[in-house]
Amino acid sequence: MSLRGVVAELLSCANPAKPIVSLGVGDLSSHACFRKARDFSKYVAEAVSSGDFDGYPPSCGYPFARRAVADYLSRGTAAAGGGAAATVAEHDVFLTCGGTQALQLCLATLATRGCNVLLPRPGFPPYEATCAMHGIEPRYYDLLPGSAWEVDLGGVRALADDRTAALVVINPNNPSGAVFSRRHLLQIAEAARALNLPVIADELYGHMVFQEAEFVPMAVFSAVAPILTIGALSKRWLVPGWRLGWIAVNDPSGALRQVKMGIERLMNISLGPTSIIQAAIPPLLSPSCEEFHRQVLGELESSCNVLYKMMMEVEAFKCYSKPQGAMFTMVEVNARLLPGIGDDMDFARELMREESILVLPGSVVGLKNWIRIFFGVSTTTLEDACDRIRGFCERRRGRPDHTAILPTFSSSRESWV
Amino acid sequence: MSLRGVVAELLSCANPAKPIVSLGVGDLSSHACFRKARDFSKYVAEAVSSGDFDGYPPSCGYPFARRAVADYLSRGTAAAGGGAAATVAEHDVFLTCGGTQALQLCLATLATRGCNVLLPRPGFPPYEATCAMHGIEPRYYDLLPGSAWEVDLGGVRALADDRTAALVVINPNNPSGAVFSRRHLLQIAEAARALNLPVIADELYGHMVFQEAEFVPMAVFSAVAPILTIGALSKRWLVPGWRLGWIAVNDPSGALRQVKMGIERLMNISLGPTSIIQAAIPPLLSPSCEEFHRQVLGELESSCNVLYKMMMEVEAFKCYSKPQGAMFTMVEVNARLLPGIGDDMDFARELMREESILVLPGSVVGLKNWIRIFFGVSTTTLEDACDRIRGFCERRRGRPDHTAILPTFSSSRESWV
Repeated sequence: MSLRGVVAELLSCANPAKPIVSLGVGDLSSHACFRKARDFSKYVAEAVSSGDFDGYPPSCGYPFARRAVADYLSRGTAAAGGGAAATVAEHDVFLTCGGTQALQLCLATLATRGCNVLLPRPGFPPYEATCAMHGIEPRYYDLLPGSAWEVDLGGVRALADDRTAALVVINPNNPSGAVFSRRHLLQIAEAARALNLPVIADELYGHMVFQEAEFVPMAVFSAVAPILTIGALSKRWLVPGWRLGWIAVNDPSGALRQVKMGIERLMNISLGPTSIIQAAIPPLLSPSCEEFHRQVLGELESSCNVLYKMMMEVEAFKCYSKPQGAMFTMVEVNARLLPGIGDDMDFARELMREESILVLPGSVVGLKNWIRIFFGVSTTTLEDACDRIRGFCERRRGRPDHTAILPTFSSSRESWV
Repeated sequence: MSLRGVVAELLSCANPAKPIVSLGVGDLSSHACFRKARDFSKYVAEAVSSGDFDGYPPSCGYPFARRAVADYLSRGTAAAGGGAAATVAEHDVFLTCGGTQALQLCLATLATRGCNVLLPRPGFPPYEATCAMHGIEPRYYDLLPGSAWEVDLGGVRALADDRTAALVVINPNNPSGAVFSRRHLLQIAEAARALNLPVIADELYGHMVFQEAEFVPMAVFSAVAPILTIGALSKRWLVPGWRLGWIAVNDPSGALRQVKMGIERLMNISLGPTSIIQAAIPPLLSPSCEEFHRQVLGELESSCNVLYKMMMEVEAFKCYSKPQGAMFTMVEVNARLLPGIGDDMDFARELMREESILVLPGSVVGLKNWIRIFFGVSTTTLEDACDRIRGFCERRRGRPDHTAILPTFSSSRESWV
């Protein structure tokens, strides 16, 4: 079942006596605490009122909008010490209907039927769904919770074969909240080079890192391995409903020339994102929005701290590391300490039934008996939600355990999955 | 090559000394004569300024927007004498990124790899491109220019077999400008029933018919065969860049229950059109816009008359019938009367080189040695363009004929295709 399908099913179980708090889906837009710093709507309102952007845009996007994305990404790599090879040009950028279309286009052009791609576990379900649509085999490498959720590079090497088309890396990471270090990103790029693979660098949460972390765009290492960077307005600008994303091809060696042509061909068929949103890209991506981003991150880090504190206190939870960015974290649930709860789906359903709090069962993102929790709500809302989650777990502990014996925490994840 | 690919190639050949007139792509939005009657931008500006529509909409669309489309379509079928079976409910409507995603979703859910679908020739290239993406075989039935471009029903019956998944019907027709009569639409529905096929009724140009024609939505015949109606804001509201379309499932017998679930599943993965455009749907689809639509149609019919007159005058052209709606017409080109022109692609390229006028080579829509001409420009612009096309053809006649002998007009189209 898709992430959205599971969410819809869970929402239908809510306790009518309690207000729903969604810690299930990554969307900051409805929370006033994040929005107060800036109103972006004027750029779109101006674009639509001008009447200049009602017609079909060029298939890959308006040139001025592609250029604005290229400049934005190039500023990011330069700030992270990337050389000239990491610079993005206008014609390297393709505008898409959100990050979702971006990842779909990357997979559809890099892999053909019968190929495989290497995806992270835990991961982001639309990758798997897109593979299924195109007859591509998903192969899962592990992110290691005990090692700050770093990529299991030995696993990557063991999975790859001559039908492997790409390595997908999500950083800052959804769902774990990990932010990969420069050293680790270089290790990933070197592993990709050794396997002769391009990297799909999913940077939907690019730059969304907390004070102690550093965001290094994968494109900084494009001289090591070719990189397709995926991004979107959705998360950082709080407008997921606007459906505006991009692909940037960082390919100084020219290895992805055919892939670029493939993306162009598919864009000619699918057309692209809404014209008036494209028209708003230059002001949205200008450096003048940095203060807004800083304020959002400050709020987000405060909320993250509230959640982390609760997770460390609840005996049935195990949280391996504090999130360093993005909007989610993963917590392992010891169902043995929660009588009546058999697995992560049970946990999410019962929590919804009793407390109307939505969390995502980890099996949806590849880790059974974990849950993914979104922390992009105000600290007040999150404190209330944490109290309700804490109370839910405490009440369960008071019940007799009729469920089968389940494994307790172990350092080996294999016994859980 | 895709329609957009051909257009891009032709545009690169323009004569720098003459202003480009595009009679290639169906987009009224840049022409003031059509826009003057109404400004729709305020609805979108209000939606974006409210801040209420920045988050993810539900996968299939906001319920209020789906309801507005359902009401709009139900008014259309009721006005055309459709019974209760032709009424559309909110949950029958799925909002999509333009008509393009609508047709892609229909094909992807109705047909699996190895199936075939019946497409019109001449037709609309994205159907074929979508078939290629999903391993579906396109089979082409003819539209008969000598019979007002009606569907060759004998051909439809001959093409269908037990792997046929759907019959695609475009009405009002792109590219011919034909509008099918009620009698003919019933014949099509009955042929679909006899073959046990659902009809994909592409009504992107729904209601865009001239004074002497009547638009009958295919859904009027949903008791005969199940209908998936495709529509969009693009053409009738002059906003193709806004990327807002829909699918409505008219299925009183319940035969398409699985298909509806399949569409929902795919929408859960692809998400849908931009939230703030969805939010503007109710006012856009309200009956209060009828006067605007009438004015646009009046302008469009005047332009159509200008084009038709020219086409009847040029000896090298053969136009079988006057368009009754939509924005295009097809004209057969007798290359034998145009020395130096070998085929439709030559015609389009040379016309671009000499006169900077863009027309679409018929081979892109399935008819070699025809051209598709868009007439959605002001009468003044079209008169000028017609003079330039006339001059181009006359100059050619004055040249010696170095090309091979090509067939002249014949009542049998087979010799041309």
